[in-house]
Amino acid sequence: MEFSDHIKTANVEDVVLRQPLHPPSRGTLCITGHHLLFSEREEGTSRQVLLLLKNIDAIEKSVENLSASFFSSAGPGKRMSGSSGTITIKCKDLRVIQLDIPGMEQCLNISHSIETLSCLDHVPKMYPFFYRPADLSLQSHWGLSSPEMHYSQMKQLHNRWRLSSVNRDYSVCPSYPPAVIVPSSIDDDTLRKVAKFRQGGRFPVLCYYHRKNGMVIMRSSQPLTGANRKRCKEDELLLQAVIEGSDKGYIIDTRSSQQAQQARMTGGGFESKSCYDRWKRLHRQMERGKALQESLIKLVEACGDESHNMDRWLSKLENSKWLSHVQTALSTAGLLAECVERDGHSVLVHGFEGTDSSLLISTLAQLIMDPRCRTLEGFLALLEREWVQAGHPFQQRCAHMAYSHARLQQESPVFLLLLDCVWQLWRQFPLALGFSEALLLRLATEVYASDYGTFLCNNDQDRCVLGVKDKTHCLFQVLLRPGDRDIYSNPLYEPTELAIWPSVHPQSLQLWRGYFLRWTEEARLLEEAQEEIRNMVIEWGRVALS
Amino acid sequence: MEFSDHIKTANVEDVVLRQPLHPPSRGTLCITGHHLLFSEREEGTSRQVLLLLKNIDAIEKSVENLSASFFSSAGPGKRMSGSSGTITIKCKDLRVIQLDIPGMEQCLNISHSIETLSCLDHVPKMYPFFYRPADLSLQSHWGLSSPEMHYSQMKQLHNRWRLSSVNRDYSVCPSYPPAVIVPSSIDDDTLRKVAKFRQGGRFPVLCYYHRKNGMVIMRSSQPLTGANRKRCKEDELLLQAVIEGSDKGYIIDTRSSQQAQQARMTGGGFESKSCYDRWKRLHRQMERGKALQESLIKLVEACGDESHNMDRWLSKLENSKWLSHVQTALSTAGLLAECVERDGHSVLVHGFEGTDSSLLISTLAQLIMDPRCRTLEGFLALLEREWVQAGHPFQQRCAHMAYSHARLQQESPVFLLLLDCVWQLWRQFPLALGFSEALLLRLATEVYASDYGTFLCNNDQDRCVLGVKDKTHCLFQVLLRPGDRDIYSNPLYEPTELAIWPSVHPQSLQLWRGYFLRWTEEARLLEEAQEEIRNMVIEWGRVALS
Repeated sequence: MEFSDHIKTANVEDVVLRQPLHPPSRGTLCITGHHLLFSEREEGTSRQVLLLLKNIDAIEKSVENLSASFFSSAGPGKRMSGSSGTITIKCKDLRVIQLDIPGMEQCLNISHSIETLSCLDHVPKMYPFFYRPADLSLQSHWGLSSPEMHYSQMKQLHNRWRLSSVNRDYSVCPSYPPAVIVPSSIDDDTLRKVAKFRQGGRFPVLCYYHRKNGMVIMRSSQPLTGANRKRCKEDELLLQAVIEGSDKGYIIDTRSSQQAQQARMTGGGFESKSCYDRWKRLHRQMERGKALQESLIKLVEACGDESHNMDRWLSKLENSKWLSHVQTALSTAGLLAECVERDGHSVLVHGFEGTDSSLLISTLAQLIMDPRCRTLEGFLALLEREWVQAGHPFQQRCAHMAYSHARLQQESPVFLLLLDCVWQLWRQFPLALGFSEALLLRLATEVYASDYGTFLCNNDQDRCVLGVKDKTHCLFQVLLRPGDRDIYSNPLYEPTELAIWPSVHPQSLQLWRGYFLRWTEEARLLEEAQEEIRNMVIEWGRVALS
Repeated sequence: MEFSDHIKTANVEDVVLRQPLHPPSRGTLCITGHHLLFSEREEGTSRQVLLLLKNIDAIEKSVENLSASFFSSAGPGKRMSGSSGTITIKCKDLRVIQLDIPGMEQCLNISHSIETLSCLDHVPKMYPFFYRPADLSLQSHWGLSSPEMHYSQMKQLHNRWRLSSVNRDYSVCPSYPPAVIVPSSIDDDTLRKVAKFRQGGRFPVLCYYHRKNGMVIMRSSQPLTGANRKRCKEDELLLQAVIEGSDKGYIIDTRSSQQAQQARMTGGGFESKSCYDRWKRLHRQMERGKALQESLIKLVEACGDESHNMDRWLSKLENSKWLSHVQTALSTAGLLAECVERDGHSVLVHGFEGTDSSLLISTLAQLIMDPRCRTLEGFLALLEREWVQAGHPFQQRCAHMAYSHARLQQESPVFLLLLDCVWQLWRQFPLALGFSEALLLRLATEVYASDYGTFLCNNDQDRCVLGVKDKTHCLFQVLLRPGDRDIYSNPLYEPTELAIWPSVHPQSLQLWRGYFLRWTEEARLLEEAQEEIRNMVIEWGRVALS
């Protein structure tokens, strides 16, 4: 089926567009396979608004009498059908826009097209496969790094760690990349056996090597011990090899102890003290899945509340629990970093599947400990390693945002929660991170709807099968081009070798207004100020050089 | 009675000082008539902490066993009385510091001295009368402006307004300055009669002239209509003269309609429609007095809560209602500015006494409308006019902060609420105000305890009688010296002629963390970043000039 089959009305004139921070404007609305295009009709101007259909989370239609619409005096030659329709479009970037469309039929056609086209989930039909800007050519190398590069950059670990290509054809673990870092003493056969003992085949792999003391962060999924407390010698051997030469290691289980116990009933489980006697298990319950999505929905609803009641706002904010989730994530990441940096122990992180909370806290812990992750490039490479390559199922998790009613079961704003936590770090350490808030905002937008292929699919295997790396542009590479780099760098950046320990006191954590209230006048003014600082620094650089 | 009568122990050695953001340190504690002085004993360093006794809001003593104290190994020559005392000092600048004092007697003596000396309220014995820094000499002119200067600067209003010295000996209104601006057509005899009809003699005076349209803001206290609906022809005449040539004026009453009605029972009242037929009364209930003080106490308690529970924090924040008061103040000020700037009408503001909420909203409205008030000098002059000269009773309102148990009836943090509201403006319009957050923090500190005479006494008359202007230094003048000016200016300032309309949506208003959480690591890091921006701008200025 072609896009055009879904488009009965491709053009409507005399449409009124209302969007935040702009006065209403009248013009022509066009719908294509991937976009809504609105062109303003005023003389002398040619302002256009281009909206990716994928960015649309929910739409609502309503009919209203023409005389009640914004432009009350009808000009000559205007179709006076007696009624017009209004489509309210709620975007995944939290924008809410409204289109007043003359004529009921046009309105119904347009809304039908939007409903259908914005939900198409066949990846090769998505816009990144069609996006071919003049100033970009498809690169031979897609992305910033690869497991191979990551490994080769860390010569210090070559002694005890090796790069295994046991997963080269994705058969051992469908959601892992083809190459992973494991203890040298563990051969590929052992890995295959361990993979069978871990949910989804996600056997323990190295994700971070702490240069200061040689300790590591490993991540995996839960062991499949089941109700019968099944053991896997190879799994025990692998973990033993991780802490070779050290007295013990920690396992941070991102579930409560009770959740971990219950997981055994459905085939999952945890590393028992008796079988992994040199590993100490710490349980930290992190919210995930549906509960996290519900939390986001409540928060977005609260942010959109137009009542002027301060108590109501604060109580809704509390009720959403979003800031509690931010707090838990940052404090669990702090615990992880403490184990590695302060106590000098290696840590294995997992919860259930090892594709969400585990990535969240390992990423944050790396930002806390490693100055290399805090540069613009370093941060993007970290995201690529720990989220894109490590198999966070972006397609499932980010299918809808907070407005959609057609809720599937797999959505969860884990990546958005990460960005929020990073923003909290950024705010608490305004000099220590090399990137700007604008980067976090851009990523929060792109992960839900993008011209680029970076956040398509659920894992590396899918991306290979569908040719994402050959047929789409990579967002991370684009963000590092000279012009973009200026926008996404932190003008106040002063690298520090020290760990940046975030305060997780409730008083220290704030709503990420720049994101959740981004379409307000207030956010626009704050952006202006950021812009001002940036210009000052650039100007200063120029004057200093001349 | 001399200060020395209150000091039994003037010096104690081996005292351990614990204060926020610093490691504990050991040294000598000295107490003088106005200060606590702590000198660190470490070799090579001579760090001192000087604390104004007036800055102390509350102290708590406790006895503890020496072995449980921070420095557990006792050095040679140390008095081992077996017990030591700990004094916890809660300051009006929200700092909480702790002194471990060896020997119970010393501890009791010190705490007794602090308790007595920090509460002395005889103005001429206060520190500003003794403060004589080498780099400052007592000025012939105290302060930045005077009613005379204010009047002479606004030539445009000379037609219809005159400077009256009816209050030259403070006999007409004890809390007004000697000169005030009133309609030209109203003579001093009339003013004397009006003063008798207004609480505390605070007859309507001009506080702001809007150059764009010639409209004005007047302020006063409530009319003394009483239960019998008494009238005062002269009062009606005065208000009539204010709106001469215009169709109507507004009265913004900072009380609810019910409160205004009830005020009649105790001799107060409001301007009835029948007697003031060209004035439209708008009621906006603003919290004041004790309720406001309670709100501050709850907020400060919440900020000091060390529990890690996010819900508890948000619910305590809501419960304190402080942000609701911020919202009400800003929205009432917005209403006032709208009347003047958008609707083009003159406004009279009053509540009960006309010394608190009226000043709060007239000050905020002037910041919103008048770019002249947004420069560093302009803002300080505004504060001097609208608070110091206009008779805000600083001595009564700011006698205690949020920790004191010895609560009097007159305390109320109205000026702090003003600074918080200004901070909200500053945050929403980061480019439009010429001063920095550091200025607001400095003012919030100085108003409760200061080396300067600016915030002493309750009104101009008291200051004259006690010789404040001859015998103390003026804070506002000091803040404008070249070095200070750098610190208190906004490096991003870009003057705009436009009104700055604050958003008063609950989502747009934030806790003023820089103040309420100022003694945390977080605040320190944010200050560092501000410093960085400042340095960059100064550096840029130098390079550009060379």
